This record gives sequence, C-alpha cells and structure tokens, in this order.
Amino acid sequence: MARRIKRTTPKQDGYRMPAEYEPQERIFMIWPERPDNWRDGAKPVQEAYTNVAKAISRFTPVTMLVNNSQYANARARLPRDIQVLEMSSNDAWCRDCGPTFLVNDKGERRACDWSFNAWGGLVDGLYFPWDADDAIAGKICELENIDSYRLDDFVLEGGSIHVDGEGTVLTTEMCLLSEGRNSHLAKADIEEKLKEYLGCEKVLWLKDGIDPDETNGHIDDVACFVRPGEVACIYTDNKSDPFYKAAQDNYKALLEMTDARGRKLKVHKVCTPSKPVLLEGAETIDRVAGTIPRKNGEICIASYLNYLVTNNGVIVPQYGDENDELALKQMRRIYPDKEIVGVKTKEIVFGGGNIHCITQQLPSIILKK
Amino acid sequence: MARRIKRTTPKQDGYRMPAEYEPQERIFMIWPERPDNWRDGAKPVQEAYTNVAKAISRFTPVTMLVNNSQYANARARLPRDIQVLEMSSNDAWCRDCGPTFLVNDKGERRACDWSFNAWGGLVDGLYFPWDADDAIAGKICELENIDSYRLDDFVLEGGSIHVDGEGTVLTTEMCLLSEGRNSHLAKADIEEKLKEYLGCEKVLWLKDGIDPDETNGHIDDVACFVRPGEVACIYTDNKSDPFYKAAQDNYKALLEMTDARGRKLKVHKVCTPSKPVLLEGAETIDRVAGTIPRKNGEICIASYLNYLVTNNGVIVPQYGDENDELALKQMRRIYPDKEIVGVKTKEIVFGGGNIHCITQQLPSIILKK
Repeated sequence: MARRIKRTTPKQDGYRMPAEYEPQERIFMIWPERPDNWRDGAKPVQEAYTNVAKAISRFTPVTMLVNNSQYANARARLPRDIQVLEMSSNDAWCRDCGPTFLVNDKGERRACDWSFNAWGGLVDGLYFPWDADDAIAGKICELENIDSYRLDDFVLEGGSIHVDGEGTVLTTEMCLLSEGRNSHLAKADIEEKLKEYLGCEKVLWLKDGIDPDETNGHIDDVACFVRPGEVACIYTDNKSDPFYKAAQDNYKALLEMTDARGRKLKVHKVCTPSKPVLLEGAETIDRVAGTIPRKNGEICIASYLNYLVTNNGVIVPQYGDENDELALKQMRRIYPDKEIVGVKTKEIVFGGGNIHCITQQLPSIILKK
Repeated sequence: MARRIKRTTPKQDGYRMPAEYEPQERIFMIWPERPDNWRDGAKPVQEAYTNVAKAISRFTPVTMLVNNSQYANARARLPRDIQVLEMSSNDAWCRDCGPTFLVNDKGERRACDWSFNAWGGLVDGLYFPWDADDAIAGKICELENIDSYRLDDFVLEGGSIHVDGEGTVLTTEMCLLSEGRNSHLAKADIEEKLKEYLGCEKVLWLKDGIDPDETNGHIDDVACFVRPGEVACIYTDNKSDPFYKAAQDNYKALLEMTDARGRKLKVHKVCTPSKPVLLEGAETIDRVAGTIPRKNGEICIASYLNYLVTNNGVIVPQYGDENDELALKQMRRIYPDKEIVGVKTKEIVFGGGNIHCITQQLPSIILKK
C-alpha cells in the first residue's frame, strides 16, 4: 500500500535523502521518443539511452519506463535483463520528474513527489503539457509500494539538488530562485522546505549553473558530493570555455564552504571538454508552433560532472573530445574503489541533459545501528 | 529478468497450471472505461469493479491495471490498499488477455502468453483493435519478472479453461473449436497444445457454453473444479430458463466423466438466476460504426458460476435476483472452509462477463515435497 502523506514532513518523521554513493536497489530511466526534442526521430538517442542502461545494469538493476506507443520498440532494443514497464511521460528525464527517495534508520523508505513543471512552467518551461511527467513520481511510488510526500505547492527537480547523506544539501540560486518555480517563496522559505523534505540541516548555495536557458542552472552539471566532506566541481583555466566563469566561481565558492557537520569541503577538479559540443542534426528535429527552431552549432551543455554513481560503478559521459580520457582519469582518482565506465552521450546532450539527468536511484533498504 | 521462451513447452520444462484453489499471491484486474461497451460512460461498472476489488483484497492483494487517461480517476476511486499501475488495454477482461501462470515443484513460476484476438478476431471478435490487450500478458510477466511462453500461433483465453491442478483440463468445444480462434488446427492438435502448455494429461470436453455470441461459450460460466475430483456446474429444472439446455447437457456429461487420475467426478449443482438478467441503459452505450446497436431487454449472460476462488475467500456474483441467497448457500456447502462473499455485478454482466472474467491470479511460490 502506497499512501500519500500531506500533514507531516520527512524530517518530522525521521527520514532523510541518502547520498547517491549509498547502496542502491534499482535505477529508473524513461525512454526518449519526442521527435521535437531529439534529432532523427529519437533513434540515435534511443541507442545512447540503451548504452547507458547497459552500463548501469552491470552494477545495479535498471527499470526503463516507456510510453505505450514505444513499448514494443523499447523492449526489442533493450537487453532482457533491463526491465521495461509501461508508464506515460512527456519526455525522458527521470532525475527531474521522478521521486526523490528517502530512508530512515529502521530500514523504511519514503519519497518526495515534488511538483514538476518542465523547468519553469508557463514562465520559461521547455514543453507543454507536462502532466504525464508530473505523475511519474506518484506512479513509481505506487509501483514500489512506497509512501510519498506530495508537494502540490513546491516545484523541484531532482537534478537541482545533491546531498551528502549527512545533513547537507548543495544547490544553485539560479535554479531554485528562478521565476518559473517557487517565486511566491523567499529564499529562506525555500531553504526551510529543502531541510524539511530532504531531512537536512544546512543548504550550501552556489550562484549560477551552466545552462541558464534549459534547467536554469541545475547543480548536477556543476558540482556534487563524492563522499562526506568532499565534492567534485567542474574546472577550467581556459577563458574561452563557455563554462569558464561558472566553473571558476563555483570552484572558489566551494573551497570556502563547510558542511552541516562543520567540515571544510575538499574540492576535486573535474575537467570540461576541450572544445564546446555543438548541436548537429537540428534540421531533423520537429518544429513546435510558437517556438524558435533549434540551430546547428548551438552550444550544448556538455559536462563530465553529469555522471551517475551507482553502487560499485560510476557512469561518466564521453563526447569524443580529447579530454574524455582525462575526465575518466580524474574519476578514477576521485573514486579509487569504484569501476569507472565511460559512455558516449553526445546524443543525450543534444536534447539538453546527460547521464545524471536521465536516471533516478531507488536506495537499498539498510538497517543502521 | 523476464525471458521469452519459444523452443520448449511448460510440460517439457516441468511446469503446470495450478488450480484456482491453490494459494495465490495477487489478483490482477483491468479498469473498465470503454463507453461503447459499458453503459453511462462506464461509471456504474467502475463502481462494480471497485466493489469486486475490495472484496478480493480482504483475502488477496489486488493490482488494478489502468490506461493512462483513467489513471487518476481509478486511483481516486479505489482504496489505497489496492495497487494501481498504468498499463494500456482495449477493454477490461484480465482473465482472458492476462497470463496463465504456471508453477513447478521447485518453487519457480512461469506463464503462458497466449495470442488474444478479442474472442474471435476478424471472424466474430468483439472489438478492433485488440493489440493493447494482446500485450497485457507480456507486460504483466515483465512487471513480475516471470519468464513466459509466447504462443504467436495459438489463440486462447483464460476463461475458456479450468484445471484441477492434478493433470485435468476442463473446456468447451463451442469455444476452442470456434472458427475465429485456431481453425487451422484439428481438435487433437488443440488437445495436445493444452496438455503441453498447461502441463496436463487429460482434457475433458463439454460441448456448449451459454454465450455463443460473446465468448463462444467459455467454460467459466458453466463449470469449474472446486477441488480435485469435484466440479461445480450450473443447473436448472426450469425449461424456460435460457440456459436450461446447456446446463442440463453439461451436468449430465460431467457425471459421466473421469479425471486424469481416474476419479469419477463428483458434480455440485449451482443454481441459475430465477429470471433472466436483461440489459438496461443500452441507449447510453456509445455506437460503433458497422455494428448493430445493443438493445434494452437483451438477455445477459448472468451465471453464479462465474465466481473467483481466492485463498480463503470465494467472491460470488449477485444480481438482485431471488436466487442470490440460494447461490451463496450452495457455495457455502461447496466450500465449507472458505468465506463466501457476494458482490452485485449486474453492471459487469451488462458488459459481457463477470467476476471470474475480470480477474487473473498470480499463484504463490510453494515448495512441494
């Protein structure tokens, strides 16, 4: 039985969001198909999602959620050990519309079912309607028989937060204070919501992300916790890099921060691609009435930071760039005990996200002493 | 991982279909919604399905499968302890399009995924298309991570067979030899398929069911096993009862039969309604191009035999007929150790089926010595 909880908060009930590096039971993904977002009828990106799912499934079981119209196609393209379930969606970003799972110390799980409005609703959202995506979190909780907190009055995407599992949230002002999300709330109110619903004590605010126009600067392209007291952050000395300023500012800001337990953060550098990844095949993307057509040569938001940690594996984006190998090397240094797996994800970046954006982890049930 | 098995048969692999009276883990149902099959926009029948689901869930957990367009409505109408999952369907008959689950003696489960063609395909099927219904069995197996035998070349509905779990299948010639199903096969070939795929040794053939026009005479309106060596059969002495001939013929035929283990069958009588149940509200049923509109006063296929045995409960149709109480009394005598629960199902009968037709059991994992 999956109940909907409205009167209490996770913090009141003793729940917290675990860090991504805590044990995971399963990864959820959503199959891409929109011909107005993905080039060539979404066929190249379906191959990329398949490769990401295969890489993850070496470490953690994967469930792919698919619209009915694409069910047979997805089932045929994916290996049999990846579970394919029907679930309607508007697009394919399970990090952002999926549930944020929570755990307590008794081995129980719950979830936050935030309002989802396609990264800005009618202000600057990316598509309309978004009702199927907004229903995804509730449906996943129903599937897993997990009680959830539904926040009808608070918009949040999973890609806009990272936690250390020990009381600290990392996020960006660019996204969480954006006009299209919770503009009725002051920064202090938003901070309070994060603490109450993620079971945390301290919010670390970075200023800007690297994609003002798409996710309004999600943290998951910029920085993340790699273990308690340590973060990774994109970094470049190349002033002509489109992400130079955000990378420099955030790296420096993180060096000055302390977490909820009072630890000064250790900051690991993660390189950016040596050259910008530019959109290709824009002419094959379906037009949408009332929007400006996309153009070949647009700069895509290609960050090596948008990776997934999943049990003993780290799944890292690769772009066919000369820094691909450096990124993997840096990851091996950051995660010496995990296997680092690179997957080519240019096609996913063309659609506006990457490995972290398209995955959502269900934490394992762990009994803490 | 749910594999698709094509090269072997359940019998070869040591699997058999368990009887309905063996332990069950879960009951699957499909939410009704078609306004061209159910009166009043399907609202009355949705209430009837809800009541059936509630009655079952006292004994066995229930999962309701729902088209996306009705998901929120179904979730709101059903109690929270009934799981609601999205799964596309053409109509709402999980007995007939769902998987036929199998067990072996090692505590493993598989399933038959028969071809489904809406009770007769282009010959005399009841709606078009039926592709979503035909995909249901595979999707349920995927959901449950159960390997399945897909029969691309053999049409069968779960409502056309009953088994005793000890080697015997009970079915009707009217249905299994109908032109719209497997007319490329001789009776002996069909018998062989049943034995191979249900893990049985003997097929007991009754001649006619009571609904030649809808399911072509499914067994589940006429007779079923109540325990090894014993069957229930509809029975009436009333010559003006529309089911008189079929009831008499089948009752007498069953008295002469022996099962796979050589036991002469004990036959329990189950009454028919004292008066025919007649269609109401036909004027609110949407018209379908190329078909004859339904008419108020048409005789509906109302049988008390179309009940569900589910663990310690037996869920029995009730029609507001003066024989309702007699049917419950007969059931109490047949199943002295189970709780008999009547549910009003006239609205379901208006659409062409009943409690057994709308349910499908997932057997429990049982280790046999």
